[in-house]
Amino acid sequence: MLEKSIQIRVRFAETDAMGVVYHANYLPWMESARIELLDSLGLSYKNIIKLGLHIPVLEVHVKYRASAFFDDRVNVRAMIRERPGVKITIDYEISRDGKTLSEARTVHAFVDSSGAPVKPPAQIISRLRELFDQSQKK
Amino acid sequence: MLEKSIQIRVRFAETDAMGVVYHANYLPWMESARIELLDSLGLSYKNIIKLGLHIPVLEVHVKYRASAFFDDRVNVRAMIRERPGVKITIDYEISRDGKTLSEARTVHAFVDSSGAPVKPPAQIISRLRELFDQSQKK
Amino acid sequence: MLEKSIQIRVRFAETDAMGVVYHANYLPWMESARIELLDSLGLSYKNIIKLGLHIPVLEVHVKYRASAFFDDRVNVRAMIRERPGVKITIDYEISRDGKTLSEARTVHAFVDSSGAPVKPPAQIISRLRELFDQSQKK
Amino acid sequence: MLEKSIQIRVRFAETDAMGVVYHANYLPWMESARIELLDSLGLSYKNIIKLGLHIPVLEVHVKYRASAFFDDRVNVRAMIRERPGVKITIDYEISRDGKTLSEARTVHAFVDSSGAPVKPPAQIISRLRELFDQSQKK
Repeated sequence: MLEKSIQIRVRFAETDAMGVVYHANYLPWMESARIELLDSLGLSYKNIIKLGLHIPVLEVHVKYRASAFFDDRVNVRAMIRERPGVKITIDYEISRDGKTLSEARTVHAFVDSSGAPVKPPAQIISRLRELFDQSQKK
Repeated sequence: MLEKSIQIRVRFAETDAMGVVYHANYLPWMESARIELLDSLGLSYKNIIKLGLHIPVLEVHVKYRASAFFDDRVNVRAMIRERPGVKITIDYEISRDGKTLSEARTVHAFVDSSGAPVKPPAQIISRLRELFDQSQKK
Repeated sequence: MLEKSIQIRVRFAETDAMGVVYHANYLPWMESARIELLDSLGLSYKNIIKLGLHIPVLEVHVKYRASAFFDDRVNVRAMIRERPGVKITIDYEISRDGKTLSEARTVHAFVDSSGAPVKPPAQIISRLRELFDQSQKK
Repeated sequence: MLEKSIQIRVRFAETDAMGVVYHANYLPWMESARIELLDSLGLSYKNIIKLGLHIPVLEVHVKYRASAFFDDRVNVRAMIRERPGVKITIDYEISRDGKTLSEARTVHAFVDSSGAPVKPPAQIISRLRELFDQSQKK
């Protein structure tokens, strides 16, 4: 498994009139964790864009188990648990003080700058698989 | 099936640097369609809140099949396809000119104003089931 | 004065833990009113983008006088009160049931697709001035 | 002057189809800097809320001088330059690598949990003024 955790401090902007974080506002947190996971693997998303590529979200699945509140310090962990193929699956665990608030998954594929699907560029996908396979041996 | 469709005009605010609508921005559209579906069933969410209740999102699942763009007129259809129980499942189809852009589902349950799960209030759930059963006979 | 009003139904997504609409969420409402004002003048912003141009926000000023709440039907009026020059100034009044909730102003200028300032295209600015001058005579 | 700077890494979620950060998305950054400024003064906004108070935004003014882009590391500096009175004015400078992208100001006042204006609580306002006066002597 490849993984990276980030810390988020909940903004007032992210709360709603129930007094908790609005459910859609977890998705940009997941984006931040995903970007930092790619960084940690030597794959800057900014550089991927410079290659004329994007890795958009094809699917998102989130289960909300407990609420997050204003000013909470939340941990967002992004994990690659499945060997990257044409599609890349990323799992997330959002927690506060060790308590799981949410579990989530996004599925991605490569597209070119016009949005058309393309095969994962060899340099990126082989790097991802190599790192994934190394992590499995540990 | 109970259903309600709304029209959304895509805002520039909702786009991202790929030139398409950012994936998280579909979720408030789904909220709007859900609220109008409840309205059409005689169940104002504002009134539900006045009863000290909320019906938060417990799960969200979205599959993105094609992109939405600035200024698109998008149709968001919310549907109750399963008989409402302790949990209420709502399905969505987001389309433009008859082309499906996205399919989605949210799962909900009733909570009180402190966020604690409560049984669906009889007046609301019996109404929902009655309407659902009527729609099945058509 | 050139003007256009739109109706907004407040989303739960737009509220915050104070139980009111979060102040930043007025800005996309203002965008919607601005876009519809341009439409009403025969100037589609989508077409302006097709010309390789944008009219970004250079300044925004908002005064919040009263709160907006979930499910409110809010009126957002966009007005051109000053003759358009190199800069275009748009004023806004956000109200509910005739009560002013907010007054705002945005200032805009034309840029090309790289973001560099450009002179307002003659076809657009002359049209805007013609319409503005006509409205002054009434 | 009292001041506090924070670092923001720009999210893809914050960009728009011009390829830059959408103007409204600067406002939550300013909120984060404001919250951290209060923290640095020993005034946790979470504690202020626990006292049944809020300090909502009454006015916001932003001038956009240059664009921010995806993945930029942006510095957001919040400053109290005027002695706090019934209203509290906070100025902001948003910059990247020393280049000013935006200058902004928000004006605030205390309200109770029903949103009604209240006098600034003595414990908070006297602390703010004391710290402000000390900073002036330096």
